[in-house]
Amino acid sequence: MGGILVDRFGKPVAFREGVAAARKVAISSVASQDGKGISLALLGTVADQLQLLASLGYSLQLVLAGDKASCDKASHAILNLLKLKEPVVELPVEHTAEEGALALGAARGFGAQLLVVLGANRGVELEQGRIARVYQPPAAGSAAAAAALPPLVAAAWAAASTSGGVPVLLAGLAEPDVLLRVAAGQDVGTLFDPAAAEAAGGAKAVAAASSARDLAVRARAASRKLQALSSEERSAALLRVADGLLAAQDDILKANAQDVAEATGRISESLLQRLVLKPAKIAQLAEGIRAIAAQEEPLGRMLRKVEVAEGLILDKITAPIGVLLVIFEARPDALPQIASLAIRSGNGLLLKGGKEAAHSNAALHRVIVEALGSDLGPDLISLVTSREEIEGLLALDDVVDLVIPRGSNALVSHIKRNTRIPVLGHADGICHVYVDAAAELPTALRILLDAKTDYPAACNAVEKVLVHKDWVEKGGLQTIREALQKAGVTVHAGDSVKPMLADLPSAPSPRHEYSALAVTIEVVDSMEAAIDHIHKYGSAHTDCIVTTDGERAEAFLRGVDSACVFHNASTRFADGFRFGLGAEVGISTSRIHARGPVGVEGLLTTKWVLRGDGHVVAKDAGVTYKHKPLPAAVAEAEAAGGRGRRHGGGPRCVVM
Amino acid sequence: MGGILVDRFGKPVAFREGVAAARKVAISSVASQDGKGISLALLGTVADQLQLLASLGYSLQLVLAGDKASCDKASHAILNLLKLKEPVVELPVEHTAEEGALALGAARGFGAQLLVVLGANRGVELEQGRIARVYQPPAAGSAAAAAALPPLVAAAWAAASTSGGVPVLLAGLAEPDVLLRVAAGQDVGTLFDPAAAEAAGGAKAVAAASSARDLAVRARAASRKLQALSSEERSAALLRVADGLLAAQDDILKANAQDVAEATGRISESLLQRLVLKPAKIAQLAEGIRAIAAQEEPLGRMLRKVEVAEGLILDKITAPIGVLLVIFEARPDALPQIASLAIRSGNGLLLKGGKEAAHSNAALHRVIVEALGSDLGPDLISLVTSREEIEGLLALDDVVDLVIPRGSNALVSHIKRNTRIPVLGHADGICHVYVDAAAELPTALRILLDAKTDYPAACNAVEKVLVHKDWVEKGGLQTIREALQKAGVTVHAGDSVKPMLADLPSAPSPRHEYSALAVTIEVVDSMEAAIDHIHKYGSAHTDCIVTTDGERAEAFLRGVDSACVFHNASTRFADGFRFGLGAEVGISTSRIHARGPVGVEGLLTTKWVLRGDGHVVAKDAGVTYKHKPLPAAVAEAEAAGGRGRRHGGGPRCVVM
Repeated sequence: MGGILVDRFGKPVAFREGVAAARKVAISSVASQDGKGISLALLGTVADQLQLLASLGYSLQLVLAGDKASCDKASHAILNLLKLKEPVVELPVEHTAEEGALALGAARGFGAQLLVVLGANRGVELEQGRIARVYQPPAAGSAAAAAALPPLVAAAWAAASTSGGVPVLLAGLAEPDVLLRVAAGQDVGTLFDPAAAEAAGGAKAVAAASSARDLAVRARAASRKLQALSSEERSAALLRVADGLLAAQDDILKANAQDVAEATGRISESLLQRLVLKPAKIAQLAEGIRAIAAQEEPLGRMLRKVEVAEGLILDKITAPIGVLLVIFEARPDALPQIASLAIRSGNGLLLKGGKEAAHSNAALHRVIVEALGSDLGPDLISLVTSREEIEGLLALDDVVDLVIPRGSNALVSHIKRNTRIPVLGHADGICHVYVDAAAELPTALRILLDAKTDYPAACNAVEKVLVHKDWVEKGGLQTIREALQKAGVTVHAGDSVKPMLADLPSAPSPRHEYSALAVTIEVVDSMEAAIDHIHKYGSAHTDCIVTTDGERAEAFLRGVDSACVFHNASTRFADGFRFGLGAEVGISTSRIHARGPVGVEGLLTTKWVLRGDGHVVAKDAGVTYKHKPLPAAVAEAEAAGGRGRRHGGGPRCVVM
Repeated sequence: MGGILVDRFGKPVAFREGVAAARKVAISSVASQDGKGISLALLGTVADQLQLLASLGYSLQLVLAGDKASCDKASHAILNLLKLKEPVVELPVEHTAEEGALALGAARGFGAQLLVVLGANRGVELEQGRIARVYQPPAAGSAAAAAALPPLVAAAWAAASTSGGVPVLLAGLAEPDVLLRVAAGQDVGTLFDPAAAEAAGGAKAVAAASSARDLAVRARAASRKLQALSSEERSAALLRVADGLLAAQDDILKANAQDVAEATGRISESLLQRLVLKPAKIAQLAEGIRAIAAQEEPLGRMLRKVEVAEGLILDKITAPIGVLLVIFEARPDALPQIASLAIRSGNGLLLKGGKEAAHSNAALHRVIVEALGSDLGPDLISLVTSREEIEGLLALDDVVDLVIPRGSNALVSHIKRNTRIPVLGHADGICHVYVDAAAELPTALRILLDAKTDYPAACNAVEKVLVHKDWVEKGGLQTIREALQKAGVTVHAGDSVKPMLADLPSAPSPRHEYSALAVTIEVVDSMEAAIDHIHKYGSAHTDCIVTTDGERAEAFLRGVDSACVFHNASTRFADGFRFGLGAEVGISTSRIHARGPVGVEGLLTTKWVLRGDGHVVAKDAGVTYKHKPLPAAVAEAEAAGGRGRRHGGGPRCVVM
């Protein structure tokens, strides 16, 4: 359930015991957007939640507001389809505060332990869009008390405060899983309850709110300011980040030493390796950021230019996506790299790092905020350090445009399964090399050994070798197996080769990513069988054919539906740097937005700009359409994206 | 909650009364992917569900399988964080069927009314990936009975069948909301329960399954076959569809007449208008499909070509997305148009039409299936007519790549809120026209009248007029208001103009889409204030500035963060045909994948093809990187997308 605010181990972010204990609940005001009666489509957005709660034993009362006809229609639908045990109360009133008072009366008559009022607002709004957790009545004699309260707020407070009153919860109809979150006692909406108000005490507790949401909203505003800067100004900010990293080196290393000391013995040796920062690494980081600053301007690139009609010119240009959420584990050096890519491409950023690197991340983040200056710094790039954990962030699908996970397969899978925000990344890298009947064996061996041993844990390392059956009699199967074993690779037998190579250990499953010096070997009857096998058990990441038969190679490249398809080349080439994309954002196995190794273009969207001179459509009689393509800079720009740079090896499945 | 299988009114697709009634539930086998112990990250995927069920009063027992150390770690996390009332039972066993038997024993000891066993499989698999709802033991003496049952299946059946047995439910750990769906009594996994097996009776009931999922899986396989066809073969299939429509005209019109007769009086007059098919419309449809057949081949277009190293050539080419789900209301003519775009672009398709057009849709679908032939026809393009409703389809995020809703705002909003599948479309079209201080009033009036009256209900019609404050004294505000009123437009006052134009009705809210001959008018202090207003209340669809000040126009075009930004041109130009994209897929306000008016390219993704000669990475020492851009056909192809055609007016917010 995407919207439930629990941390990664299921711990709720906050718990409202009293609310969670209520089993007899009235729910009011499923009103339509235009305030006129009930829309069945809108009702549908909470109907599944009502049905689940009802099936879980809740007594529910639904108080509908709207005109008689739509109430009748809706209550018929609800009674018959949801099989609610309690009748639906109809309130044929207009869309006013009166509605609130009537709903309260109905709830009291029902004996509800809680009344949930769903509306357009997410609750009682405080400054900067924050929602009060618990409503606090203004102090007597204060200016706020003198001002008239919104009628619904006044009614809710009165209902909750009178003897035998019903606690009221105001929440947003459009919030994901709103009723389920209420039932689970989570922080959603504003609670009107004198006891809770007293317990919450001072203004501070009241104002506590979904801070990550605020951060995202502010990041978007800051990203709009950033876009208004010139390319040179954005480059200059990046150079300040690079200088700042070097200047703050001592602070950063000190913070990092603290992280390392705390983590030693608590995390694996390989994770610990990734956690450590050294002066050389910081210098390398600064150099990388200077390279990003020197890159071609990614924003405003002309992708298409069309003369729509005489004097009416349409451009399609690149623009930033908006607000990115990057969730990363261990490696603190990822932070300045990701931040620099965001600055270059005009995006706002929420960063959520692993706890093991908390001090290092804070020190690095400070450098970036200072380099950006007081106007942009505090808002554009935020390090989420609040109690809100990953699940809470993943629920921000209305204010975050893209999630980029950087970490283990388990983290990426978890994120993909638990958010409605698009995810740029890949969970699995189950890459295949198919050795065709027409392969040259030395070529096949060279490619196989490189694809497995160059960096066995990489996502683009081969996990499965498919050998054409002709090689069984010709001895090639044995040769391949022995060459791999000689190179230290544990060769596992897939079902098809178990009878031939009985001494090999069995593969754990037909779909298995070793991420280690191990592969599964299988025999296939034909290239078509290899393609079917890849579609059935692969992860559509990178798959390769080794053959001298050009026609068969083309059929394989056309037929295999993966992000990267190779002929006679190691799967290890599937990498942003090796592809010449410059800075790598990650490798995506998604079929939407960006696929395969992704460069900065993965952080961009497009925008249509139309310039006219008073042009009108007038039923398409107002203009004579030409739709004449004009020369755009796109060809060179797109092709020149290939301008890459040499780089060393290493684990780079995700952000540079 | 995305995954709950209820129809749009909350009616569950199926209900397991007995399972839903269980309140004491044991849950087993949260095993990690590699079968070795428990991964906390994987546990996290069900932890939120466990927490919710626990908070709803369920007694839960969690039976963990794995080695002792990981059990300890996991049970510590669960006990402390989830506050489960019952202890966690540890089963320090290997990943085998024995695990199942031990879990059953533990569940019995706990007195569980149900044992849920979560694993890698979605249940007991029948033919074609279907999952048995209820397990049926093979008849005595049958071949199946003679063959050995998988150990876990045998154990589950034995446990359920013995006296005092516990019903067992086998389900997939990775299925969204799996435990909540089980708790709600929905069809998920396979139930082992002698009573249920008897009730289910014959083989037919057992095989009933999630048919929409099957359709999606088959559509992907068919789309891969389609891609293997040549461009000419796909064009020929489209021409057969066009011919077939004309040949089947009588059948189609007969079916349509039946829909119209049944819908008359039950749906609005405007919806009824859209439902009606006439011979002229069918002829127009056939012509449109011929135009799609004649279009340039969209697949395999070269977007980039790079010489990575000597003899190592990288291509980035276009490829189909895979499987699309199109949900449309009313207009049956959308069906052949969408199907044709899918065929041209090599995609598989699930179509879910409105009930009001059921007969028409069936007749049109028959024509397409016949035109595609027996190899592709039955699988490539499916009309979902089963009981599964929209919510069920929206849960298919693992087998559907993109949803394209075609219908009312309410439908689109609902879909956006309730699925993890990327959505191509827009819910709102709250477009602004800002009349700058330096505007020519006649130009502003011409644009405003066109933007509102050309087609008032269109998504690209203006909903809000922002007037620079200088026009108040100069009388321009009055002129604008009067010109709009004279054209029949109801002008509503926003907060800022209420004091000046007190006789106007108030705007219902600062963010309102009239979709009718009505607008809101506001006065703003500056262009910057106009931009802020648009960001705060707009929908990032299409926004326009009217001014003679070129510098200010450019600042507006740069500063407004919408899919379409216009200078001195009517918002009504925001349309795929008018932009020259040819066939229009829809208008997207998403910031991912495609934005603004979307042509066929919205149905495409990319694929990287690397051709080498035995190239290996060898820690990047194996090759000398060149990254030399080679001439690609991209420039012309991309720019030539502008080659459009004239077309009539009309509502075309979504698929052509």
